[in-house]
Amino acid sequence: MTSSRFLAAVESLPIPTQKTSTPRRCTRCSGSSGRSAARRRRPLAEVPLPAIVDGAVRGDGRVDVLLLGGGLQQGEGLFETLPVESGHPHFLDRHARRLARGADELELAPAPDAETWGDDLALLCQACGSSDLAARLMLFRDGERVRRGVAAQPLSTAQLGPAELGLAPKGLLGPRPHAHMKTLNYLGPRRAHAAGVKAGYDEVLFLMEDGTVLEGSRSTVFMIAGGVVRTAPLDLPILPGVTREVLLEICEEAGTPVREEGFSLEELTGADEAFLAASLRGVRPVSKVQGQPLPAVDGPVTRELAGLYRKRVRASNR
Amino acid sequence: MTSSRFLAAVESLPIPTQKTSTPRRCTRCSGSSGRSAARRRRPLAEVPLPAIVDGAVRGDGRVDVLLLGGGLQQGEGLFETLPVESGHPHFLDRHARRLARGADELELAPAPDAETWGDDLALLCQACGSSDLAARLMLFRDGERVRRGVAAQPLSTAQLGPAELGLAPKGLLGPRPHAHMKTLNYLGPRRAHAAGVKAGYDEVLFLMEDGTVLEGSRSTVFMIAGGVVRTAPLDLPILPGVTREVLLEICEEAGTPVREEGFSLEELTGADEAFLAASLRGVRPVSKVQGQPLPAVDGPVTRELAGLYRKRVRASNR
Repeated sequence: MTSSRFLAAVESLPIPTQKTSTPRRCTRCSGSSGRSAARRRRPLAEVPLPAIVDGAVRGDGRVDVLLLGGGLQQGEGLFETLPVESGHPHFLDRHARRLARGADELELAPAPDAETWGDDLALLCQACGSSDLAARLMLFRDGERVRRGVAAQPLSTAQLGPAELGLAPKGLLGPRPHAHMKTLNYLGPRRAHAAGVKAGYDEVLFLMEDGTVLEGSRSTVFMIAGGVVRTAPLDLPILPGVTREVLLEICEEAGTPVREEGFSLEELTGADEAFLAASLRGVRPVSKVQGQPLPAVDGPVTRELAGLYRKRVRASNR
Repeated sequence: MTSSRFLAAVESLPIPTQKTSTPRRCTRCSGSSGRSAARRRRPLAEVPLPAIVDGAVRGDGRVDVLLLGGGLQQGEGLFETLPVESGHPHFLDRHARRLARGADELELAPAPDAETWGDDLALLCQACGSSDLAARLMLFRDGERVRRGVAAQPLSTAQLGPAELGLAPKGLLGPRPHAHMKTLNYLGPRRAHAAGVKAGYDEVLFLMEDGTVLEGSRSTVFMIAGGVVRTAPLDLPILPGVTREVLLEICEEAGTPVREEGFSLEELTGADEAFLAASLRGVRPVSKVQGQPLPAVDGPVTRELAGLYRKRVRASNR
């Protein structure tokens, strides 16, 4: 679904819960026709927020599922997380495609297309009374049925400082099963991340047994050495990140030397610069790896790519 | 909860859905007082079967949960599977203890005690109109709440032939994160098992990188060589199996030499006998490992331990 179709859908749908308010012109999409109340910037209320389940508003954010239906029983399902800003879901087509690939593999196909998710997100914005949110798309088995839901979380717009990286705790440090999909089996990354935060890090790394860096607990890892950008290749057990994909395209377009090639923890520690890439956080510079500072934090290559990425986000959402 | 208390609970509870029928004397517990309709042997109906959620009957087997409540969202929860025969849940105390340890680790504590699960199972038997079922206990996060459910599946009483073992597919072959708990992150074992069945095996093995055998996709693996019984130790990433625990006690009591000690795939292939142990299947002899036959299938040690295990099940449920 194109962003203009998304916006049209936002505006054409009934608004179940929100109060009317004076339409405000979106500061970022002056070219578009939309300025509905659903697109106003307003912080989301506290949980429980509404959710959209199989296309219908659930004001309490809940869904009824079979205990033994697969989804709850063993995490037989998939998710995607993406920002919605001023009613624009970032790179929705790419998220929908990745989710559809996972659905084929988990026998949850056919997955909804981007247009269907877009309609759900438009309805979610209306139900939440906000056009700025972090959206989660979910697809899961419920017995004979495959069901979909979209739910909202507050979109953090706080400017984050550079990230300090640690290692995932023993037992979670190695490659993850199903790392190439965002399945509902997500205790590993969540617990690894929580352990890292407890230890004073912003993010932790998963490694192969031989020390090859795979990815962060919530991000793709990029390193820069001698002007060359590197990130782990997709034949390693990593998530094919949407932001990773976009950044590789940006490097190609900008003529920045880039290689999808594994690198070790030592190489990362000895890099000139490094950054994390994730849908909700964009490009975030790395300051330290296991307590050891990198020579350049938010250095020239990181800064250039971050700027090009923001530009691309804005362009893609027009 | 002792089995007599369990049976008393079964009999004292109202019976929400079942029809009355002539009480029949249980052939296995003639010493007990119970002979309620809830304990009659009757095959379970097709899905959806009733479930008990937070102590209340849900005739449709469903539960309503927050999409972003933790349980569905990322499999933040635990389960146990155990047989209920003639109203007796096998080794319920041990299952409840294991689940409570996991609940501490996942911050889902305090977990329900065995008595609470026993009450739920009694209610489940009544709601299902059967006292023979495979029960699943589940504990999961739902936002601020921690919820519990018990659900029934048909109890297979078919005599299984000896098991042919293969290996888990690449990508799932290695140690599993959280293997020591039965979390709702269970796609790995399920997909590994399904791949094995598709390849003509009954069960597949997870291995360490160095070839050490960890466990089966649904079982603990025991091997016997030179009269000594061996199974992987609990400091490896394996499930502390309830049946494993009982069998170790049985070996000690029977004076059968037993060691909790890692062994390689080669050692297993070269064993005199081997068997699998699991709550729902008890002791099941292994016939082949990766197509290679073992010298003795259902050999003397396997047979003796299987007999002692059945005896122990009967004794523990009195």
